[in-house]
Amino acid sequence: MESTRKDLDFSINSNFSNELKNAIVNRLNNLTKPVGSLGYLEEIALKMGLIQGNVIPEIPKKKEVYVFTADHGVAENGVSAYPQEVTYQMILNFLNGGAAINVFSRHVGADVFVVDSGVKVDVDIEHEKLIKAKIGYGTKDFTKGPAMTKEQAYACIEKGAEIASKAIEKGAELLVVGDMGIGNTTTASAVAVALGFGLDEILDIGTPLNEEGLRKKKEAIKCALEVNEPDATDPIDVLHKVGGYCIGQMAGFILKAAEESVPVIIDGFPTTAGFLIAWKINPQVLNYVFAGHKSKVKGHKVILDKLGLRPILDLDMRLGEGTGAVLSISIIEAAIKMIREMATFESANVSKGEDQPV
Amino acid sequence: MESTRKDLDFSINSNFSNELKNAIVNRLNNLTKPVGSLGYLEEIALKMGLIQGNVIPEIPKKKEVYVFTADHGVAENGVSAYPQEVTYQMILNFLNGGAAINVFSRHVGADVFVVDSGVKVDVDIEHEKLIKAKIGYGTKDFTKGPAMTKEQAYACIEKGAEIASKAIEKGAELLVVGDMGIGNTTTASAVAVALGFGLDEILDIGTPLNEEGLRKKKEAIKCALEVNEPDATDPIDVLHKVGGYCIGQMAGFILKAAEESVPVIIDGFPTTAGFLIAWKINPQVLNYVFAGHKSKVKGHKVILDKLGLRPILDLDMRLGEGTGAVLSISIIEAAIKMIREMATFESANVSKGEDQPV
Repeated sequence: MESTRKDLDFSINSNFSNELKNAIVNRLNNLTKPVGSLGYLEEIALKMGLIQGNVIPEIPKKKEVYVFTADHGVAENGVSAYPQEVTYQMILNFLNGGAAINVFSRHVGADVFVVDSGVKVDVDIEHEKLIKAKIGYGTKDFTKGPAMTKEQAYACIEKGAEIASKAIEKGAELLVVGDMGIGNTTTASAVAVALGFGLDEILDIGTPLNEEGLRKKKEAIKCALEVNEPDATDPIDVLHKVGGYCIGQMAGFILKAAEESVPVIIDGFPTTAGFLIAWKINPQVLNYVFAGHKSKVKGHKVILDKLGLRPILDLDMRLGEGTGAVLSISIIEAAIKMIREMATFESANVSKGEDQPV
Repeated sequence: MESTRKDLDFSINSNFSNELKNAIVNRLNNLTKPVGSLGYLEEIALKMGLIQGNVIPEIPKKKEVYVFTADHGVAENGVSAYPQEVTYQMILNFLNGGAAINVFSRHVGADVFVVDSGVKVDVDIEHEKLIKAKIGYGTKDFTKGPAMTKEQAYACIEKGAEIASKAIEKGAELLVVGDMGIGNTTTASAVAVALGFGLDEILDIGTPLNEEGLRKKKEAIKCALEVNEPDATDPIDVLHKVGGYCIGQMAGFILKAAEESVPVIIDGFPTTAGFLIAWKINPQVLNYVFAGHKSKVKGHKVILDKLGLRPILDLDMRLGEGTGAVLSISIIEAAIKMIREMATFESANVSKGEDQPV
């Protein structure tokens, strides 16, 4: 079976000790607040402590966002309200700092890198924030045959892992994956359906489309599955037949980050499709991933629920680029500061309630 | 009728011009993103623009949190898991910077002030962040008679308004209301029920209580309504009979801030009860208030839904102090930065999609 290839052999530690877990929970329960009253923030602090192997986790010093951009052959079927040239134009906008992801990343103190995973045209720009990782000039139209070759699918994983590796080598301590590419929600939907989700529970309008556009989108995905017959048990087969270059690179990126014990925040629907591929390759990634938000795309919640990942924000966003994920950094940092900076009952001389451990 | 008294005469502008509104929406629609794709952030930016009277709203330079603290006579009925002395101990914790609200406020760059609205004991401390506004030494047990006199109810509104006035005079541009006081969710529940909400749709455990505690809490509220017969159409009557000093001061504070066109973020259930009193006095306050989060207290969502206020965060928090509200500042600021800093289609040379205005 192909998926036993060395390329997919990520060794992800998930042997968190009970001793560490108990120590973190104990610390949380001794902070000056009723037990559990900071809700999901307490779970976030616990997860971050386990990932870092610290009872009192550190604030990530270097935070980086990677926006994986690519074109999708399926866009030729009229599945998006935007012309394909927008993918390239948006790369320029990212590099100039004018896109939403730039604004929100500055807001939380994160750097934005743009990855050319496979845009249709040459991205002939020298820019320190541009990562040239082109696997091909846009995928092929998967309604007619495989989106990419099997070798390209492996190359996506490898390249994504390499990008994560370099980021971590240079000191990144918290990573965000974002995506941009006309046609990406259609590709992400195809991946999710190929991996076993129902078309009707997943499919939604994405970037606003009318009924006609939605019909075309459904038609394209149905057609892709009939033509390609992807194997739901083999993530590489799915990536090869109905995936996208960005989705494959995000999967490799997430797997590598998890292997290096660096937390990753996923964003909306396409990044979650990337995560789904990663999870199928190695389910232990789940311990290193935060869902930054729940997007307005219908299928996003379906997948997050299935994976048991609770989104941090829920603001009806559906832009992509990593925008929802990056905004959640403020909440994640607040959770870490809670456990780092709050007084305990003892230190503040506050009486414990009946719910408190003695 | 008492509520026509001059004390309650807040003149709140809500005559937002259509021209301004259209200009803001137009700007939002021309940013480099699909129309509406930043979801609730776009509504937040619009509301902030209307409040400030600016197409491109400013980031609030001075952000302040006011934690209204008080004791509640009803606590004598065993409705809380904590002893009443904790109210005072927590004031010290707030002033020492060790409570959750201090940690989160530092995180978003806000200052924390503690208001003694009516703690049971003397708060004999001189501290620049402590505001002495005691209306009385804890309210009376409202299961036996009115919580406070009618004059005290008016004094709460007046004092709360005065605190907001001073904050705004000194330059506060974004205000957060928080609360702390053993028994406060019981009092807040009584206020909500007295104003027409159903006891069973509102009442929840608050700070963890067992079934026995919940039964006592219900009993206390039922009893309070039978003994006092508050008039649901008269917010001052409700405050006087089943309210709390902190709830009344928060109401006055919110009304004054709205009168001065300064936005206020409310927090969990007790602050929302304060807001409910304010709203009953002048429904125009709604245009100046953000719901920072939806707390885990059951009745909170019921009231927010009724008022049509969408919470920004939803993290199962139920601590109070203003903690949920203050965390939402990061999201509100991101929304403002979006409209201030994002490129437009024209400025970035990005092609418009079919959903874009021409």
